[in-house]
Amino acid sequence: MKLVRYGNPGKEKPGLIDADGKLRDLSSVVPDIGPAQLGQVGLTKIRKANPAKLPLVRGNPRFGCPVAHVPKFIAIGLNYSDHAAESNMPIPAEPIVFMKATSCIQGPNDPVMLPRGSVKTDWEVELGYQLERGSQWDKGKGCDTFGPIGPWLVTSDEMTNVQKLAMWLDVNGERMQTGNTRTMIFNCAKIVSYCSHFMTLEPGDVITTGTPPGVGLGMKPPRYLKKGDVMTLGIEGLGEQRQLVVPFKAG
Amino acid sequence: MKLVRYGNPGKEKPGLIDADGKLRDLSSVVPDIGPAQLGQVGLTKIRKANPAKLPLVRGNPRFGCPVAHVPKFIAIGLNYSDHAAESNMPIPAEPIVFMKATSCIQGPNDPVMLPRGSVKTDWEVELGYQLERGSQWDKGKGCDTFGPIGPWLVTSDEMTNVQKLAMWLDVNGERMQTGNTRTMIFNCAKIVSYCSHFMTLEPGDVITTGTPPGVGLGMKPPRYLKKGDVMTLGIEGLGEQRQLVVPFKAG
Repeated sequence: MKLVRYGNPGKEKPGLIDADGKLRDLSSVVPDIGPAQLGQVGLTKIRKANPAKLPLVRGNPRFGCPVAHVPKFIAIGLNYSDHAAESNMPIPAEPIVFMKATSCIQGPNDPVMLPRGSVKTDWEVELGYQLERGSQWDKGKGCDTFGPIGPWLVTSDEMTNVQKLAMWLDVNGERMQTGNTRTMIFNCAKIVSYCSHFMTLEPGDVITTGTPPGVGLGMKPPRYLKKGDVMTLGIEGLGEQRQLVVPFKAG
Repeated sequence: MKLVRYGNPGKEKPGLIDADGKLRDLSSVVPDIGPAQLGQVGLTKIRKANPAKLPLVRGNPRFGCPVAHVPKFIAIGLNYSDHAAESNMPIPAEPIVFMKATSCIQGPNDPVMLPRGSVKTDWEVELGYQLERGSQWDKGKGCDTFGPIGPWLVTSDEMTNVQKLAMWLDVNGERMQTGNTRTMIFNCAKIVSYCSHFMTLEPGDVITTGTPPGVGLGMKPPRYLKKGDVMTLGIEGLGEQRQLVVPFKAG
């Protein structure tokens, strides 16, 4: 299933994308898509619904993050062997775990805001591994708007092989990142296992699993995002995102 | 006011400590003490309640974290000048911000569990600065049970000077840490301002503000926690905590 949350920020409703790519309203089945719905009970309930009988949603509403109230936003650093090479960093011996502030999470196509005073804002496409079962990079990675997630939460039954997904990112239409989840140093299963050694993973937690080569920092000379830039990006089977870069504005 | 949450894990009820140090039930005033209650509206409602008319709670119930559903758990590293000296680390030029997994949060007196395979678990007393307004250290600091908070959430009207609070920590009755919030490198107001540059702070967010000297890593030879150790600790005006160190156990 491709689950979504659509509508204005803070007022998103649950939905699903049917086999024809059409958006249907899931409100009659579940009140939202969040920790309470992402256990086996909630997912089974959604699975039993007949998409053809759910109301079609008209127009082109905004998509929000497909998971409401993400309890933890965990990130894995330097997890692509080709990106580690590009960054002149050694291959880590174990996963580098850090946390992102959940307040950075937003919809897949919402504008990304340059932090106040920032001159080195970079782009990164990542596979987010959402959990269905019951120095500090945090600051720079957790700025407001730095966590666009979506458009879809794709359930595992639709993924043939999560370790063989093409991924890409363009800035202003120019291809910057090209990668594939097969070059992950630690695969998704290993990451979930590893994190579980240290902390309880809860339904709705999101883990991002690192970015492939092609970030601006690795370019000669380095290149960073500026006001007006447009990022478009996607991962095979998981949909596409588009973000306009806007100046800092206090919330 | 001294606000608390008491009862079994996951089933805590809101309470307050009255002027005589007695626990009273706040359930008739607010359903819980969390993000929804920690704005001005909720706090005003609690302030208007007459403690003498609230039911006394009998017995000695467990205390939980005094804030339910903490959205973000932010931590500031190396924020005491005397601790930085002890650690042979330079005084940071700006606050070192990292995030702790909210799943590590527990009650002030709940047992602390040694992570699987850990041989270097250390102690740290910290002032948590709870927000009333509307390499990666994360992993090691965010292990389950590594975030005992409480016993009380003390509202700012009861704090004369948050930058002049004595703090201490004993292991098995032996004084290990002695400090005072006046040796903070970046004070609480500065930390809140600094974090706000990068991320939206929300009601219920918790910021821990660093630990004073006396951690086991700084001892010669270094000393770490082991099964059966008991930590007792406190901060002037904010109450005391006690934790038994227990072996790892899968949740």
